[in-house]
Amino acid sequence: MLENLKEEVLQANLELPERGLVTYTWGNVSGIDKKKGLVVIKPSGVPYEEMTVEDMVVVDLEGNKVEGELNPSSDTATHLVLYNNFPKIGGIVHTHSPWATSWAQAGKEIPALGTTHADYFYGAIPCTRKMNKEEIQGEYEVETGNVIVETFADKKASYVPGIIVNNHGPFSWGEDATNAVHNAVVMEEVAKMAYRTVKLTPEIGAIDQVLLDKHFLRKHGEDAYYGQG
Amino acid sequence: MLENLKEEVLQANLELPERGLVTYTWGNVSGIDKKKGLVVIKPSGVPYEEMTVEDMVVVDLEGNKVEGELNPSSDTATHLVLYNNFPKIGGIVHTHSPWATSWAQAGKEIPALGTTHADYFYGAIPCTRKMNKEEIQGEYEVETGNVIVETFADKKASYVPGIIVNNHGPFSWGEDATNAVHNAVVMEEVAKMAYRTVKLTPEIGAIDQVLLDKHFLRKHGEDAYYGQG
Amino acid sequence: MLENLKEEVLQANLELPERGLVTYTWGNVSGIDKKKGLVVIKPSGVPYEEMTVEDMVVVDLEGNKVEGELNPSSDTATHLVLYNNFPKIGGIVHTHSPWATSWAQAGKEIPALGTTHADYFYGAIPCTRKMNKEEIQGEYEVETGNVIVETFADKKASYVPGIIVNNHGPFSWGEDATNAVHNAVVMEEVAKMAYRTVKLTPEIGAIDQVLLDKHFLRKHGEDAYYGQG
Amino acid sequence: MLENLKEEVLQANLELPERGLVTYTWGNVSGIDKKKGLVVIKPSGVPYEEMTVEDMVVVDLEGNKVEGELNPSSDTATHLVLYNNFPKIGGIVHTHSPWATSWAQAGKEIPALGTTHADYFYGAIPCTRKMNKEEIQGEYEVETGNVIVETFADKKASYVPGIIVNNHGPFSWGEDATNAVHNAVVMEEVAKMAYRTVKLTPEIGAIDQVLLDKHFLRKHGEDAYYGQG
Repeated sequence: MLENLKEEVLQANLELPERGLVTYTWGNVSGIDKKKGLVVIKPSGVPYEEMTVEDMVVVDLEGNKVEGELNPSSDTATHLVLYNNFPKIGGIVHTHSPWATSWAQAGKEIPALGTTHADYFYGAIPCTRKMNKEEIQGEYEVETGNVIVETFADKKASYVPGIIVNNHGPFSWGEDATNAVHNAVVMEEVAKMAYRTVKLTPEIGAIDQVLLDKHFLRKHGEDAYYGQG
Repeated sequence: MLENLKEEVLQANLELPERGLVTYTWGNVSGIDKKKGLVVIKPSGVPYEEMTVEDMVVVDLEGNKVEGELNPSSDTATHLVLYNNFPKIGGIVHTHSPWATSWAQAGKEIPALGTTHADYFYGAIPCTRKMNKEEIQGEYEVETGNVIVETFADKKASYVPGIIVNNHGPFSWGEDATNAVHNAVVMEEVAKMAYRTVKLTPEIGAIDQVLLDKHFLRKHGEDAYYGQG
Repeated sequence: MLENLKEEVLQANLELPERGLVTYTWGNVSGIDKKKGLVVIKPSGVPYEEMTVEDMVVVDLEGNKVEGELNPSSDTATHLVLYNNFPKIGGIVHTHSPWATSWAQAGKEIPALGTTHADYFYGAIPCTRKMNKEEIQGEYEVETGNVIVETFADKKASYVPGIIVNNHGPFSWGEDATNAVHNAVVMEEVAKMAYRTVKLTPEIGAIDQVLLDKHFLRKHGEDAYYGQG
Repeated sequence: MLENLKEEVLQANLELPERGLVTYTWGNVSGIDKKKGLVVIKPSGVPYEEMTVEDMVVVDLEGNKVEGELNPSSDTATHLVLYNNFPKIGGIVHTHSPWATSWAQAGKEIPALGTTHADYFYGAIPCTRKMNKEEIQGEYEVETGNVIVETFADKKASYVPGIIVNNHGPFSWGEDATNAVHNAVVMEEVAKMAYRTVKLTPEIGAIDQVLLDKHFLRKHGEDAYYGQG
């Protein structure tokens, strides 16, 4: 069942430690089969070096386990809120990657300071508001998803494929699990460069809108001319 | 004698350079057999790449060598003070890992700024007071243990499994030697992210108590629901 | 056709990820055969690990593709402006290497703060002015080249073999593709050290002219006495 | 001739890139045979990956080449000044290692902020004054040695086995070439931690003299009790 998706989700999960985004088991990737309405996600607390395709867990969009021996990632409920609210996305990544998490802990959005950022994110990578007591003590993982969706009320998830959750860390997404990891890597890289930039020039502002338009739309707009396609 | 524990302590020591926590021989791990009241610890000044299970030294809780050709780590007396005062712990690690040591040199506790920290440490990782002349010139390694114990007067060692010794570096502990290394790795990671966070937002305070409770107790409390257990 | 140059340009491109200068496909190297007036450049959007010598694209100095199945790098037009204006250079590199890019995003030149810098760059590595709306919306890649050339109006490209484009990232060049990569590596290294230096001593100024002269001319001037040549 | 020393000097040189202290050929190690009054040093500008024991150059204490096909390192004259003035040292290292070089560029000594530093360096690692025009335009490499010796007028070279040359980078030394590299690695590590410490607590002062005494003398004094000896 969903063997291709499971294999892709496994490989996407394994890419997290290879790319230096996770320590121990601090990350998880999922992918969705939209036609079937089923999500494949990493199991909870299993070391990456031992993980196999059989360990992947299949859940439906209400969170019922459909297949798998193991418990799904404890962040599964957050992933499901995002799939239910952002119908275009096909894969989701959550990590505690150190640069993005440092911004999350600082409670600040990652500003769009250069063309590297603009090639992937159409504006700042937002930081959610802090979650309140009711949300934290209630259905915490669901509410984590809700606060992300709330932050995107006036944004397109496909134009800004990631966010940092206040006091917590980054989530990113994409067309599929592989692309979501790609965006997680980029977020970490631009988080690192943005840190250094603001330490060099604290008063720096975002890049001009025209430059943001140029770079984002060059790769993602209808007139895209980057690559071979 | 204690072959399993020696093997675990050796592997835990070897993990220190693999995880980037030590340069040369700047670290040591021990583990205790509580029933027998015996501690296995790394020998002093032996390069990690040459270390074998036979090099591990066995001492009793008064510091008498029970087995081993080599001198035990020069920090052995500090380990013993901790085993004698924190009866629940099963393993101890000391390193000069660079991020935690930078906080130690700054004489500041590592604040709890995010959920990564809260997943492992129930509040700030404290920094001891400076040791005084009598302590430094007296039984220095014993006094290093004493100042750690003093700092934990109102804290549970199992809730905050680590500390930084002022002007010196980190100690961490855990259920066993393996878990103590795990906590040492996490401390270094949160020390790094806390540094960057306070450089981004100097006025940042600790995360809300309710978020600290949620994350720590999710993994360590009686109602833990993380992982497969 | 141009097999040796293609092989050199391929190897120079592959050196970018090996040296840690690029993430994914964020970089490109070209080399020129001056006699033939032909430039060999990396294809657009092809992963480094799959790139072969046959993928290299040959263009003339007006940008017409002379050989190759794939589209040339989307930055090709920038490279051509530099070859047309800096007749002595034989290779060009563009990356988003993180330290140099952080300076680019800060909109600041990389000051000459030590002899490492002075061994390769005769003075600060300049940062271009911001490009304006017309330039960005016009022939953007050509204009990127033009703003680099404008910045070098009073500088010798062979004395300062690199620049950072405001809000974007570094370009470097050299006698050939290999040497251009060498200068890109050095720029990243001096960008890193300059960052740390100004954070330690914000008021620091450039090194004395006499020290700059000594080091640059020791390796590059007519009386050079470094190395075996 | 001096085959053992050549082999040791070669291995010590190769350790520089392995330990991350040098980029390209930016470093050199030498060792001395005191009885014969001969120094073995790395050749100038030869890549580490191609260097063989036959490439090592033998010079006497006046700088005359005694054996070797290649030119000795362009920093040979600096090494010789140090051997002539610090009779106890047996090996010397020069690098542009990034953390120590950042302090050199900032023109600041590396303060003794913790026990890691105190285990190897008995006080701050000094920074020379800036060299003047006559020194730079004169016998530059000899004068580099002279300004180091001048800085050590009231210090023991065996108690502080390293220095940073203003606007330039670190030199370190030791009992032999291997030990000099060891001290270079330690200097880079303490330079990194000192940077982070002063960024966390700008007003931090050096550690107490009594702690400096304790740690340095524990390993280096007559009552040393660290290690197996």
